[in-house]
Amino acid sequence: MLSEDLAATHDVPWFKRSPYDGYAIFSGSTLEAGADHPVLLEVVATIGAGFTWDEGIKPNQAVKIMTGAAIPDGADAVIMVELTKEVVQNGKTFVQIKRKVRPGENIVGIGEDMKKGEVLVPKGTIVNPGVMATLATFGMTEVPVTKKPKAAVIATGSELLEVGEPLEKGKIRNSNAYMLWGQIIRAGGEPVFYRLVKDDFEETYEAVRQAVKEADIVMTTGGVSVGDFDYIPKVYEKLGATLLFNKVAMRPGSVTSAAELDGKILFGLSGNPSACYVGFELFVRPYLKTMLGERNVYLKKTQALLGEDFPKPNPFTRFVRAKLSYQEGLLHALPVRRDKSNIVSSLIEADALIVLPGGSRGFTKGTMVDVLMLEDGEGAPLWDENITDRRPQRQR
Amino acid sequence: MLSEDLAATHDVPWFKRSPYDGYAIFSGSTLEAGADHPVLLEVVATIGAGFTWDEGIKPNQAVKIMTGAAIPDGADAVIMVELTKEVVQNGKTFVQIKRKVRPGENIVGIGEDMKKGEVLVPKGTIVNPGVMATLATFGMTEVPVTKKPKAAVIATGSELLEVGEPLEKGKIRNSNAYMLWGQIIRAGGEPVFYRLVKDDFEETYEAVRQAVKEADIVMTTGGVSVGDFDYIPKVYEKLGATLLFNKVAMRPGSVTSAAELDGKILFGLSGNPSACYVGFELFVRPYLKTMLGERNVYLKKTQALLGEDFPKPNPFTRFVRAKLSYQEGLLHALPVRRDKSNIVSSLIEADALIVLPGGSRGFTKGTMVDVLMLEDGEGAPLWDENITDRRPQRQR
Repeated sequence: MLSEDLAATHDVPWFKRSPYDGYAIFSGSTLEAGADHPVLLEVVATIGAGFTWDEGIKPNQAVKIMTGAAIPDGADAVIMVELTKEVVQNGKTFVQIKRKVRPGENIVGIGEDMKKGEVLVPKGTIVNPGVMATLATFGMTEVPVTKKPKAAVIATGSELLEVGEPLEKGKIRNSNAYMLWGQIIRAGGEPVFYRLVKDDFEETYEAVRQAVKEADIVMTTGGVSVGDFDYIPKVYEKLGATLLFNKVAMRPGSVTSAAELDGKILFGLSGNPSACYVGFELFVRPYLKTMLGERNVYLKKTQALLGEDFPKPNPFTRFVRAKLSYQEGLLHALPVRRDKSNIVSSLIEADALIVLPGGSRGFTKGTMVDVLMLEDGEGAPLWDENITDRRPQRQR
Repeated sequence: MLSEDLAATHDVPWFKRSPYDGYAIFSGSTLEAGADHPVLLEVVATIGAGFTWDEGIKPNQAVKIMTGAAIPDGADAVIMVELTKEVVQNGKTFVQIKRKVRPGENIVGIGEDMKKGEVLVPKGTIVNPGVMATLATFGMTEVPVTKKPKAAVIATGSELLEVGEPLEKGKIRNSNAYMLWGQIIRAGGEPVFYRLVKDDFEETYEAVRQAVKEADIVMTTGGVSVGDFDYIPKVYEKLGATLLFNKVAMRPGSVTSAAELDGKILFGLSGNPSACYVGFELFVRPYLKTMLGERNVYLKKTQALLGEDFPKPNPFTRFVRAKLSYQEGLLHALPVRRDKSNIVSSLIEADALIVLPGGSRGFTKGTMVDVLMLEDGEGAPLWDENITDRRPQRQR
């Protein structure tokens, strides 16, 4: 991602050039030309792209010119080769033209593509193939880009086995940390630190303390609920971190918390895979992208038709994992598989979160609802004036 | 991208577990429970996630249990900790319950998330964070993925300077090769070979010959038009390559060609930046993705409302570089900047191509048109039955 605006350092094109293979001529030489009155202009040179004809042309002369070549002095138009015929008379080559050519016809003017000084790519833009072409055009072999924030992941839970370990009674393999690893990379961060710790206060404390030293942003999964072994709040306390929030009125991910220490943010994410996933996308991602200097730090929000009934009301706003499809310009959002917070498989297919505001009523299929797009690289700005804040219609 | 189907190697969860912090009980013990008739069950153990209580429970007993812990034998339900109270009587700890608990309540059943043998991720799927979590769940530290096709890029044109070189009269810096580099990476290929050659037959021939040896897929830019120095068709001929097509009835990119040599495909793309870009996305990308074993090799197609008038009819199908926006579930496609084939700057912002079929009429703003999405990683399958082939309405 660019960390400075990219402005054009010269006009593009920086000389008048031909967009086609043809003949550069003075348009005034064709005033009398017509289907029955061909004019003949003498071809004084042939130039390929990259070459120039420095002698210029006079009226009734022409230079055969290839796509991209510079227009010689004296010429003010190009006629495409397909509309002409070459004829040889008395050892000289002429181009036969049967129509009037307008001044300026088929001339790519100076600065027609990009003007010197014009900001072409604002800072905070990801370097896509079009940006790469633009950088090359201006000879920019190196450009300032944002340093990727270093992210730490600590998975807590005595039930967690490492990925390489065989299953044991009552235990499961740690999947959240690897999921977060992928989410960090997708959001533009650099995962640098990983620990798996038991539900043990000292072990958790030490891991978090070390993570804060080595990374710019620290995520823990698990240990944030009301259980007897949920040590994250106590770890924040002992570290002297300032609690920013704990518990959020949403499902899943209600146990998400955040604290600040030495200017670094510690995110306490749920141990439930889907709750952890949603907590990352809604809270960690925007923070990480802000550190990157991106303009659009939030998930892109749009509206879609709800693909399924949600008859049961919920006091909390729900974020339902869903798959989007486009049908004749209308977006449809279908919930994927079993949408429970402890379900991993729903995350494979999900490319959006349906937002169902909390309240006393359910939602019917076909209702227009807000959706947040997970795979969209562009995102949404902090204050998006283009998006209406219209509430979805409730079921009656 | 996965090169084999990923199937569940065991049920997930593989033991019954608790989705909440609470008490594992036998539901039959609460038959008499009510707001005015609390029942007291003896708490015989407390287990965190990762631990088990192997003695099981009898009726009128309970085990305090944390989220994710295994349900002990004899228990068939969990009551959330928030709905209970602990009381101590005669040195024993009891949990007080004031409601009937249903059998199976708050028990995550075996295989509720994923069933053993079930194909969770079909081959040809990109490894997103959800797939990473799934791989970790099954202890898959290594999985077979597709080898990235090696791609070669040869930029032809005597007008081309290298990116590090200062401008010279009549010359421009090579931007197409760097743009293609980005497009190759975005499509999942690995760029391995790059040459910049003059408009010279022997030099071009040698570069292509070497590229075919070193890469799986070869792209040239420029040299494919009708100009005097367009050598690509002659290079194909001398190499003994079989011409598959040259010229396509579309704008931009009409000079796109393809040939086959020793089972490798040579793509001859236009030297015009936007024509080169479109030629890559429409022809090279699907081929590259087919080599990768992806299911969805084409750009994702959907419909959107045209954001601008296109009054001038065109006999050829046009692919107009555009930016998409979502407004209340409706997709809008607005053409970006100056849409000419020799314009680089339009590629910075473009995230879609509007498809305007060739014909004798123009198109009005607000018409529903097909659009191809450039930044969508998911793509469209070879035969997409979900997408209607409805032609856009023409202007009357």
